[in-house]
Amino acid sequence: MSSDTGSLTHIDESGAARMVDVSEKDVSARTATATGRVLLAPEAVAVLRSGDVPKGDALGVARIAGIMGAKRTPDLVPLCHPIALHGVKVELTIVDAGVEISARVKTADRTGVEMEALTAVAVAGLALIDMIKAVDPGAVITDVKVEEKTGGKTGRWSRPDAG
Amino acid sequence: MSSDTGSLTHIDESGAARMVDVSEKDVSARTATATGRVLLAPEAVAVLRSGDVPKGDALGVARIAGIMGAKRTPDLVPLCHPIALHGVKVELTIVDAGVEISARVKTADRTGVEMEALTAVAVAGLALIDMIKAVDPGAVITDVKVEEKTGGKTGRWSRPDAG
Amino acid sequence: MSSDTGSLTHIDESGAARMVDVSEKDVSARTATATGRVLLAPEAVAVLRSGDVPKGDALGVARIAGIMGAKRTPDLVPLCHPIALHGVKVELTIVDAGVEISARVKTADRTGVEMEALTAVAVAGLALIDMIKAVDPGAVITDVKVEEKTGGKTGRWSRPDAG
Amino acid sequence: MSSDTGSLTHIDESGAARMVDVSEKDVSARTATATGRVLLAPEAVAVLRSGDVPKGDALGVARIAGIMGAKRTPDLVPLCHPIALHGVKVELTIVDAGVEISARVKTADRTGVEMEALTAVAVAGLALIDMIKAVDPGAVITDVKVEEKTGGKTGRWSRPDAG
Amino acid sequence: MSSDTGSLTHIDESGAARMVDVSEKDVSARTATATGRVLLAPEAVAVLRSGDVPKGDALGVARIAGIMGAKRTPDLVPLCHPIALHGVKVELTIVDAGVEISARVKTADRTGVEMEALTAVAVAGLALIDMIKAVDPGAVITDVKVEEKTGGKTGRWSRPDAG
Amino acid sequence: MSSDTGSLTHIDESGAARMVDVSEKDVSARTATATGRVLLAPEAVAVLRSGDVPKGDALGVARIAGIMGAKRTPDLVPLCHPIALHGVKVELTIVDAGVEISARVKTADRTGVEMEALTAVAVAGLALIDMIKAVDPGAVITDVKVEEKTGGKTGRWSRPDAG
Repeated sequence: MSSDTGSLTHIDESGAARMVDVSEKDVSARTATATGRVLLAPEAVAVLRSGDVPKGDALGVARIAGIMGAKRTPDLVPLCHPIALHGVKVELTIVDAGVEISARVKTADRTGVEMEALTAVAVAGLALIDMIKAVDPGAVITDVKVEEKTGGKTGRWSRPDAG
Repeated sequence: MSSDTGSLTHIDESGAARMVDVSEKDVSARTATATGRVLLAPEAVAVLRSGDVPKGDALGVARIAGIMGAKRTPDLVPLCHPIALHGVKVELTIVDAGVEISARVKTADRTGVEMEALTAVAVAGLALIDMIKAVDPGAVITDVKVEEKTGGKTGRWSRPDAG
Repeated sequence: MSSDTGSLTHIDESGAARMVDVSEKDVSARTATATGRVLLAPEAVAVLRSGDVPKGDALGVARIAGIMGAKRTPDLVPLCHPIALHGVKVELTIVDAGVEISARVKTADRTGVEMEALTAVAVAGLALIDMIKAVDPGAVITDVKVEEKTGGKTGRWSRPDAG
Repeated sequence: MSSDTGSLTHIDESGAARMVDVSEKDVSARTATATGRVLLAPEAVAVLRSGDVPKGDALGVARIAGIMGAKRTPDLVPLCHPIALHGVKVELTIVDAGVEISARVKTADRTGVEMEALTAVAVAGLALIDMIKAVDPGAVITDVKVEEKTGGKTGRWSRPDAG
Repeated sequence: MSSDTGSLTHIDESGAARMVDVSEKDVSARTATATGRVLLAPEAVAVLRSGDVPKGDALGVARIAGIMGAKRTPDLVPLCHPIALHGVKVELTIVDAGVEISARVKTADRTGVEMEALTAVAVAGLALIDMIKAVDPGAVITDVKVEEKTGGKTGRWSRPDAG
Repeated sequence: MSSDTGSLTHIDESGAARMVDVSEKDVSARTATATGRVLLAPEAVAVLRSGDVPKGDALGVARIAGIMGAKRTPDLVPLCHPIALHGVKVELTIVDAGVEISARVKTADRTGVEMEALTAVAVAGLALIDMIKAVDPGAVITDVKVEEKTGGKTGRWSRPDAG
């Protein structure tokens, strides 16, 4: 419906913010995948890669933070509906430029879970920066975006520029 | 001290994560400024700028989300210390490419507030995407980074590549 | 059933508080509407109405607080069930005596949402007072009450004294 | 200062909401007392007073909810500063018209605690209604207001119409 | 399935923590009962039993804390799914050795509620210790364990050593 | 003072729960150490010890949960004061009988941090059980207790039966 894709559905006719009514939407299986990156100085990447430092733990803390962050989405994003989550997976991969993050969230509910996936990536990125900021105070979270979502009335959407 | 700037201070000798002891640090006035951007499709920027839609409210929701997000930092970032915040200011500016976000946080405590400033920017960005995602499902949060911090033993730090 | 309307259902036979078992209740569409008012000094009403001050934002902050407050109901009200919310709408209207607040909440679950609607009104009122208290330290939240609820076994209930 | 008492200090010059900077304010002992009432049907008052029902527990749950609510104030009121609380006391008294609630909060910090006191009263009232709503679905929270505050630059303020 | 009962299902093939996907599990009625004890010095037991002190209230605070704790389980246990709870009952009984705690939780969802029942017991125990620690700084929480769970694919499980 | 050590300080003269006023207490450096154990079946211990499974991660998740749990103490324990924490360290050690947990918390404030240390141990134990419950549904949290506390008017207290 054009009003769903061409207007700010969180805002009613008078311009006031509201949590939109999803009562009429079907309960359906829904997934969303989001990705992002934390750009780090070479020194910081070396520390994460080094056998001398427990890199697994730094990534591990960020992974847990991302999963817990997905659960906090309705507390953080004012107009998000509180929904059940059926599964959350957060992956962090060290690359030359820093750390790549991806999050995949599943549910069966009346609203999509792209905000939960984006929140998982953003919070994992924040936690990673917190772990590494003594080494690299200039770390940058970048390219946090939805890659794909499935389910609901609109079905599958995938990012046009995604390979 | 080199161990402060050259190692993962959140991780102890055995590699286990911990909330580092800041008892010996001085209480001092501290500030941090962070910035970031949400990249949007031209259609979404037009909607935000349009007089037909309540753009003020979309930015207003994101601003509130950012301020509240700063307060939730210790809930989100596992090893962050819970601290008092003396002031938080979040600004959002519509530009051709989307929306620019900046957050400035102040405290007088034993730890810096750069994580609070980064969290404010990230959460404001998430909330903005939530408001505009029906118009632009491809919105991207990018370039979330600390611009400057002051206070504490290390004094003022500002991003080398900042203008 | 008389035991539902004539006793304290949150308290078991021995007098101990419990979260009552709703397993046997049907999942049904439910709504609740609550209202309340914040009484303000004429000076404060004038400030809110004035074009010189950003009244929209003061009401906007309160509106967001009310919506987020509805989501926090199970955290605040000890024996409330955590449930999904399908929609929340909070409206604030400036009148001569102050600001009128109404909240409408929808769900499809096993329990009613009148506590969520009441919480939305109360928290919106608290946030509004916080915004205006420098102008009017004597602001009063009053007449917070359920106007109507629908759904569930008992069906529609509306306040007897409501027009 | 006139700008403290004659404008919306939570809103900056451009009209954007912010958490005001209190860095320059002195740390001083501060208290606030707030009161409110829950109006109940005579049947509900009788149930609370009756020896047959555990009225102590109903009031006890509300009292705990009020104390915990005071601690959640910065989570609920968007622009409230997160501060330490040194003491919170919530009292509920059954009267013919329902239940009277008062809350007294103490701290030593840079901001007042009137929002914490008001939140304690409001949340205690919400919890009480939740306990009694099966008996009286028409309960009303009313007259929630600050009675007195002390400390800070402005010193003691007490409600003009308070006995 | 053997992989469900013989491996760490919260950890994927690569060893990374995740919130396991329960999409394929059936929604079914589920219950869990957990118990635990707080061991106290005779002096503390006497205070709780004494008519001079409000023992009901000390137990009452712990009971409320347990019920609210059950609702916070997904905030506390990193990989727990956020789910609806249909009922929570927490009981505390004074015995010669201290206080016995039991919690029973019900839901109809895709995952069991044993973590919610364990959390209710543990948090009730923490709250009880907080109430009594001035009398007995040596209080001990012990024997926190699941007694029985029902529902789901595996059906009823009861502790082998339970009577 | 005898009233501090011989009565329920969280309960006032009338028997009502309150958050006790600590305004008159000195700000001083305070620490607390608590310990506990999770008893596990030999099969579960073997899985944790095995090189085939990522035991580090299971312990790592529990460690993070414990640290974050310490920060949530005032949300969980109704009458606990919200205070700053200067450091939190949680250690888990695999032994033949299961996993031993210890937590050490530091602050400089007006109240002790034994509840934070106990909460860290209890929540770490809950998280560990959640990780291992598919292997061992009968895991038990036991012997959660304060070992030592320092600071404040009463100075150092250590458990009499501690080595």
